[in-house]
Amino acid sequence: MSESADRRIRNDEEDEFGTQLETWRLRMEGALAARLPEAEVVPARLHEAIRYSVLGGGKRIRPALVFATAHAVGLTEDEVEAAACAIELVHVYSLVHDDLPAMDNDDLRRGRPTCHKAYDEATALLVGDALQPLAFQLLAQDPKLPASPAVRLRLIDMLAQAIGTLGMAGGQAIDLAVQGKQLDIGQVEDMHARKTGAVIRASVLMAAECAPSLDPNLYGALSRFANAVGLAFQIQDDLLDVTGDASLLGKATGADSERAKPTHPAVIGIPASQQRVRLLHNQAIHALLPFGERAESLRALAHWLLSRRH
Amino acid sequence: MSESADRRIRNDEEDEFGTQLETWRLRMEGALAARLPEAEVVPARLHEAIRYSVLGGGKRIRPALVFATAHAVGLTEDEVEAAACAIELVHVYSLVHDDLPAMDNDDLRRGRPTCHKAYDEATALLVGDALQPLAFQLLAQDPKLPASPAVRLRLIDMLAQAIGTLGMAGGQAIDLAVQGKQLDIGQVEDMHARKTGAVIRASVLMAAECAPSLDPNLYGALSRFANAVGLAFQIQDDLLDVTGDASLLGKATGADSERAKPTHPAVIGIPASQQRVRLLHNQAIHALLPFGERAESLRALAHWLLSRRH
Repeated sequence: MSESADRRIRNDEEDEFGTQLETWRLRMEGALAARLPEAEVVPARLHEAIRYSVLGGGKRIRPALVFATAHAVGLTEDEVEAAACAIELVHVYSLVHDDLPAMDNDDLRRGRPTCHKAYDEATALLVGDALQPLAFQLLAQDPKLPASPAVRLRLIDMLAQAIGTLGMAGGQAIDLAVQGKQLDIGQVEDMHARKTGAVIRASVLMAAECAPSLDPNLYGALSRFANAVGLAFQIQDDLLDVTGDASLLGKATGADSERAKPTHPAVIGIPASQQRVRLLHNQAIHALLPFGERAESLRALAHWLLSRRH
Repeated sequence: MSESADRRIRNDEEDEFGTQLETWRLRMEGALAARLPEAEVVPARLHEAIRYSVLGGGKRIRPALVFATAHAVGLTEDEVEAAACAIELVHVYSLVHDDLPAMDNDDLRRGRPTCHKAYDEATALLVGDALQPLAFQLLAQDPKLPASPAVRLRLIDMLAQAIGTLGMAGGQAIDLAVQGKQLDIGQVEDMHARKTGAVIRASVLMAAECAPSLDPNLYGALSRFANAVGLAFQIQDDLLDVTGDASLLGKATGADSERAKPTHPAVIGIPASQQRVRLLHNQAIHALLPFGERAESLRALAHWLLSRRH
C-alpha cells in the first residue's frame, strides 16, 4: 500500500473515532445533566453554578477512557455510565478549584469565563466542595450501576485514593511547591503521576473493576496502559501549552513558563518531550496486545489523545 | 430536696460528664492521628497542614454525638470510631474552607492561626479538598468499622448527603446569599438545618445505622433528637457570638452582626432565642424517653451542649 493511501485510511479511522468521541460526549452531557440537581432547587445560585461548571463544555476524556475500557472488558456503556459521571464530577471539581485566584488564577476555561469569574470565589469554592460528595454518592447508590456493594466500595476507595494526598490533591500541592525550582525528569514524572495520572488511571481501572471476573493479567495490562497514557497525556498537554493555539485550546497558552512550572518541555526540551510521548504511546499500545480486537476503542482513544492539537 | 442541693448534684453530674467528654476527646486525638498520613510523607507541607488543622484542638462535639449514640443503641465506642473520624474530618474540611478569605476570612480558630494564615491559601484549599476523600475512604475500608458492605454504603451515602448541596455546602451557600437580607425565622431555621444541622444529624444517625437491627421506632426517636439538638446547638452558637467571651471561645465574637448575618438573636432577639434553645432542649430530652437509662450519655451531652459557655 502506498504511503498516501495508508494516510488516507488513517484519516478515515480518525474521522470515525471522532464520531465515536462525539457520541460519548453527548451521552455524558445527558448522563451528567440527569444526575445534577436542577438549577431551580434551593440554593439556586449554587445549583446553577454547578450546572454551569459541569455542563456545556469539555472533551470528556476521562469518561471516554471509561467507555473504551468497558468495550475492552466486555461491559456495556450503560453499566459504567455512573462511574464515568463520578469521575467527571471530581475532574470538574479540580478544574474549578485550580482556576481560583489562590491557585492558577485563570479567567478562561473551555472558552468561557471560569466559575469564580462567572459567579464569585465563594460560590466556586462551594461548587468544588459539593461536587465531591455528589461523585461518591453516585458510586454508593446510583441505580444504573449494576455493581455489588463490595464492588461499589472498591470503586469509592479507588476514586478517593486517586483524588487524595497521594493522588490529585497531592500532585497539585507538589506542583505549587516546585514552581520556579529545578527538578530532574524523574521528579517531574512523579508529580504528573499524581496530578493527572492518578485520575486517568482510575478512569481505566474503575471501569475494569466493574467486571469482577476479569482475568488479573488483563487487569495488569490495563494498569500498564493507563500509566503510560496518563503520563503521555500530561506531557502532550504541556507541549500544547508551549506550541498550541489558544483559540483551539479555549484557554491561554504559555501559562506554564510564565509560572516557571517544571514541565517536560521546560526540563528536557520540545523534541525530547515529543519523543517521550511517542515512546509512551508505543508502550500503551503494546500493553493492549492481550485484548486483541476488543481494545480497538482504547487504541483509537490513545492515538487520538496523544496526537491531539487541542 | 432543696434547690441548692439539687444544683450541687447537677454540678457533680456535669463534672462527671466533663471527664467523659475529655476521655472521648483524647480517644479522638489518637484515632485521628493514626488515620492521617504522617507529616514526613510527600507532599510533606500538605500533610503537615492537614495534621495542623485536624489535630491539637477542637471540642470534638460530633464524635461525642457518635459515641453517645453508640451507648444508646448498644454498640461499643470501638465499633463507631472510624465513623466518628470520618465525620470529624469533613467537619474540619468545612472549617478550613469557611475560614478562607473568600468566605468568612477568619484569622483565628481554636485559639490558633487558621490554616491559610499558618500556611497559605492554596494549601488550605487543598487541605479541605483532601480531607473529603479521606473521610469517604475510612467509611469504605477502615478495618475497625465492623459494618457490612451494604451498611458502609449507607454511611457513605448519608455523609455525602449531609455535606452536599442539600446539606452543609448548600447551607453555606444560603448563608452567603442572605447576608444583609431580611429573613423570617422559618428561613433562618431552614438555613441552619442544612449548614450545621445536617452533619449533627448525620453524627447521630450514622452511629444508629451501625446497629442494623435497631428498632425503627428508636431510629425515629434518634432522628427527632438529632433535629432538635442540631438546631438548638446552632442557636446557642449564635447566642455565644453575641454574649460570649472571645478568650473562652478561642475566636472573635460579634462576627455575625458585623457581617449582618440573619441569626436567631438578630431576628427574634436574645431572650426569645434563649427560650427557643430551652424548648428544643426539652424536645430532645423527650425524644430520648424510649431509650430509658441507655440514653444517659446522649442526655448529658445535650445538656452540656445547650448550656455551654464556649
